[in-house]
Amino acid sequence: MDIHNIHKRLRVFAEARNWQQFHSPKNLTMALAAEAAELLEIFQWLTEEQSKNITESEKDMSLIKQEIADVFIYLARLADTLGIDIEREVLAKIELNEKKYPIELSKNSATKYNRR
Amino acid sequence: MDIHNIHKRLRVFAEARNWQQFHSPKNLTMALAAEAAELLEIFQWLTEEQSKNITESEKDMSLIKQEIADVFIYLARLADTLGIDIEREVLAKIELNEKKYPIELSKNSATKYNRR
Amino acid sequence: MDIHNIHKRLRVFAEARNWQQFHSPKNLTMALAAEAAELLEIFQWLTEEQSKNITESEKDMSLIKQEIADVFIYLARLADTLGIDIEREVLAKIELNEKKYPIELSKNSATKYNRR
Amino acid sequence: MDIHNIHKRLRVFAEARNWQQFHSPKNLTMALAAEAAELLEIFQWLTEEQSKNITESEKDMSLIKQEIADVFIYLARLADTLGIDIEREVLAKIELNEKKYPIELSKNSATKYNRR
Repeated sequence: MDIHNIHKRLRVFAEARNWQQFHSPKNLTMALAAEAAELLEIFQWLTEEQSKNITESEKDMSLIKQEIADVFIYLARLADTLGIDIEREVLAKIELNEKKYPIELSKNSATKYNRR
Repeated sequence: MDIHNIHKRLRVFAEARNWQQFHSPKNLTMALAAEAAELLEIFQWLTEEQSKNITESEKDMSLIKQEIADVFIYLARLADTLGIDIEREVLAKIELNEKKYPIELSKNSATKYNRR
Repeated sequence: MDIHNIHKRLRVFAEARNWQQFHSPKNLTMALAAEAAELLEIFQWLTEEQSKNITESEKDMSLIKQEIADVFIYLARLADTLGIDIEREVLAKIELNEKKYPIELSKNSATKYNRR
Repeated sequence: MDIHNIHKRLRVFAEARNWQQFHSPKNLTMALAAEAAELLEIFQWLTEEQSKNITESEKDMSLIKQEIADVFIYLARLADTLGIDIEREVLAKIELNEKKYPIELSKNSATKYNRR
């Protein structure tokens, strides 16, 4: 994935519309949470089983793809605005999770590390 | 960004803990929205100006980096579970946005295309 | 429920701490969404069945009660700040829903009215 | 506010449509968070000042009233499903907040009690 290209395209898009004025970190977290909630709305009344089978519905998948893209776009904008290297932070977090959730304590258990 | 490597590491992490049972698309949207809301909590009482200056606080930035990573991780898991190619969808959405928000109609205006 | 008393206590609480400066409608929607997401976090890895049986866990229920109160508190503050009469709007919305979701079209179906 | 009447009307509404099957606590938290996020969307690009002046727009206020009602409705359903007395919990939480945020420590400061 060419994340630098994505950052750049989103920056050019925002600047061409003079939208930097709207894209404060505060506002971007609101837009990010609002888009994440659109995904909730799609899945809220489905059983977990139905949620797995949603891949069979082209109409639902088309909507989900757009919402996933929207979440990604605002997350990328937020990271770019704050000068955060997403890939680096994701890899660091995965390593941290490996320490916080050792296999022997976490097998079959979704209990949060600080409530164990 | 090596998104395939990230997908794979998250998959291995989940499988080693037998966490696929928890990672239904429905549940992943809940985790995604919950993590996005952690970012809201950091910014909720800040002015937009303060939100821009948050980069000066190492402590806040460390927290933000972790929350951004968490959102990314659940978004990547969700996409992987549903077989969605995030980069492709993001680029498609950027192109769609360029059509829905032409510069002449969108300059200085954050009005949603369907409320214009 | 004495909603006027609740509004008043929350107002006095905020004013005593000079917190009106933080309680813009914008900020209150962020706090509201952040608190709603705390409830998501409690339920995200539970099956629907487990979510129904959560009443058996005193510890979980104690947490849920606090989060429900938090959501209510920010919702009440938001309504008060904007001069909105919650009870009136809730009753109006219930009547609207009765029209948008007639029994014969909605029985056993959670499909949103505008996607029917 | 006659909260018992609201609980009852929502219960009758759900039962008439056989919607209890959808209203697990888990699902209701998703619907609640999704509705709270609709409020975010309304305010995300507004300045705090603009958010205060939104009362001047009849169109925006009409939308906000409906979203506030939606949040209330799902919160009430969730509480009813779990047998929680909202008013009691709200009053208990206000008292707890008075202890966690003493005036001398909280004046002009929105810092969370556990980060003080």
